[in-house]
Amino acid sequence: MKRITVLGAGTWGTALARMLSNTGSVVTVWSALDSEVSTLSETRAHPNLPGVELPRELIFTGSMEEACREMDLLLFAVPSPYVRETTRRAAPYIGPGQLIADAAKGIEAGTLLTMTGVIADELKKAGAGPARLVALSGPTHAEEVARDMPTTIVSASPDPEAARQVQDLCMNTCMRVYTNPDIRGVELCGAVKNVIALASGISLGLGYGDNTKAAIITRGLAELTRLGCAMGCDRQTFTGLGGIGDLIVTATSIHSRNNRCGQLIGGGLTPEEAVERTGMVVEGLHALPAVLELSRRYKVEMPIVEAVESIIHGGVPPAMAVRELMSRDRKGEEVY
Amino acid sequence: MKRITVLGAGTWGTALARMLSNTGSVVTVWSALDSEVSTLSETRAHPNLPGVELPRELIFTGSMEEACREMDLLLFAVPSPYVRETTRRAAPYIGPGQLIADAAKGIEAGTLLTMTGVIADELKKAGAGPARLVALSGPTHAEEVARDMPTTIVSASPDPEAARQVQDLCMNTCMRVYTNPDIRGVELCGAVKNVIALASGISLGLGYGDNTKAAIITRGLAELTRLGCAMGCDRQTFTGLGGIGDLIVTATSIHSRNNRCGQLIGGGLTPEEAVERTGMVVEGLHALPAVLELSRRYKVEMPIVEAVESIIHGGVPPAMAVRELMSRDRKGEEVY
Repeated sequence: MKRITVLGAGTWGTALARMLSNTGSVVTVWSALDSEVSTLSETRAHPNLPGVELPRELIFTGSMEEACREMDLLLFAVPSPYVRETTRRAAPYIGPGQLIADAAKGIEAGTLLTMTGVIADELKKAGAGPARLVALSGPTHAEEVARDMPTTIVSASPDPEAARQVQDLCMNTCMRVYTNPDIRGVELCGAVKNVIALASGISLGLGYGDNTKAAIITRGLAELTRLGCAMGCDRQTFTGLGGIGDLIVTATSIHSRNNRCGQLIGGGLTPEEAVERTGMVVEGLHALPAVLELSRRYKVEMPIVEAVESIIHGGVPPAMAVRELMSRDRKGEEVY
Repeated sequence: MKRITVLGAGTWGTALARMLSNTGSVVTVWSALDSEVSTLSETRAHPNLPGVELPRELIFTGSMEEACREMDLLLFAVPSPYVRETTRRAAPYIGPGQLIADAAKGIEAGTLLTMTGVIADELKKAGAGPARLVALSGPTHAEEVARDMPTTIVSASPDPEAARQVQDLCMNTCMRVYTNPDIRGVELCGAVKNVIALASGISLGLGYGDNTKAAIITRGLAELTRLGCAMGCDRQTFTGLGGIGDLIVTATSIHSRNNRCGQLIGGGLTPEEAVERTGMVVEGLHALPAVLELSRRYKVEMPIVEAVESIIHGGVPPAMAVRELMSRDRKGEEVY
């Protein structure tokens, strides 16, 4: 039997741990919070996954050493702002060639590193690794994976054997895993889609309908694809599960906190009030500065991302930002 | 002022006519049904667009001669099964170089012609035309266009001047029009997306959630793109407004009759019962035989379309068809 540790006991980490345990691996879940470790271990239930029973076989621990020793796979599932610190704590127990998958989505402000880039960077600083890194991304609401709804996901790595190993560990009758060598493209999608989801939520909050939402998603995909191609990623990644697939689920779903936060802003709350009301990490707001910086560095036009920035940090009323988007010059629809 | 006739007084034709009139053209609406002409003319309201007032300036007529004489644009907005017959009736009044846009979506069974192909074919048979043909397609629910929600659409034609003329006639503060030379790709999208929407609806009817829906849309797009590329269309069309944009709106929206019909089938009704309950033309069912025939002719694998066929005509229970989709061989995610 394979041994897997999931780092992070949020809804996504817990849903993945449950699934991997039911798929036949021995699974440990690490959390930085002792209270979380004891509650999850005792109740076998996660407060944000009502009605979902966690397998008795799941091991919960607060010890990073126990979590990382002799594992076939380490799976990062902490929110993106905690990936660096979590790697720093894990590094002493990580040997060369360790298989690591990352399920957190984001780009670090300042360094502009993707999450596997952050992990590699922090391991190198600690003199640990190098690890074999995989990004795990796709249209995967934790709430549905935890209830065995049919779901697809991408296992992305330039190391095809690493991608295939993660595919084998995750695949079951409810989870279909596709491999993709373009890890950078997949991770870029994971970060940018949260910004587009903010835009889609804002439009919903303004009272607009499905046409507007589909326009934002489609033209948002065009922006994302332009940026990715300028960065040397594979165009096909953006039309895949980590690209348009995840964008659809994030920008149309009731489960998405980015979408919900945007909706509150479109409805008239300030960004600060909206974040407070959302009550969880809003990844799109964390990714926004890095995405803007990338668009400038690679000289790529991203009008929807700019509109979100103008609303969040420029004080532009949402309705005016939409009007400006609609009244841009007449164009052809090609991405370039 | 430009003069435009909309052929067809369904919800889409009526919503377009209202928008074109408000954008500054003199607009005539033709219907084959005398009762529809008189009711719309008197009430200035469409039964399926509650609360939407139609402009006093709109002219309604049952006379094809009046509808087609000296128009700057003829806009077809009848359901796809009626495009051939409507063209046959209009042909005597259509001269060479007439600008014609088609807003009906479908592929004709047997001939495998797209809707502008059907129009061209029927005009030729009648010794009329040749017309300058444009396909108008995108994520455009009539219910929302009729309420001035921000909407985007594609004006597709190999004749760039024709595409631009339609762009100019349709563009306003609520409607943003993009041009695209790949008319065949845009029309292929318009037909296939309805079949994918049936699949998405079936999954919803089975009780599955957003992850499954996003998987069906994304992998459905991969099938559609494979077919389109094999047919010589432009790959970018499939990630555009007529492709993924329209697919999103059709496969996720409460307004979509294809989605609704699929949902009824997933919930246990027979296809016949579901069509009866839906009560309108379900374009996906009309397009299905032609899409299957194209996939065979171009030797393109389309597992989701095949699954829909197996449910609709093969008597396979929906849950079993989904199980088969989820348990196919492990794969990379590339389209080819």
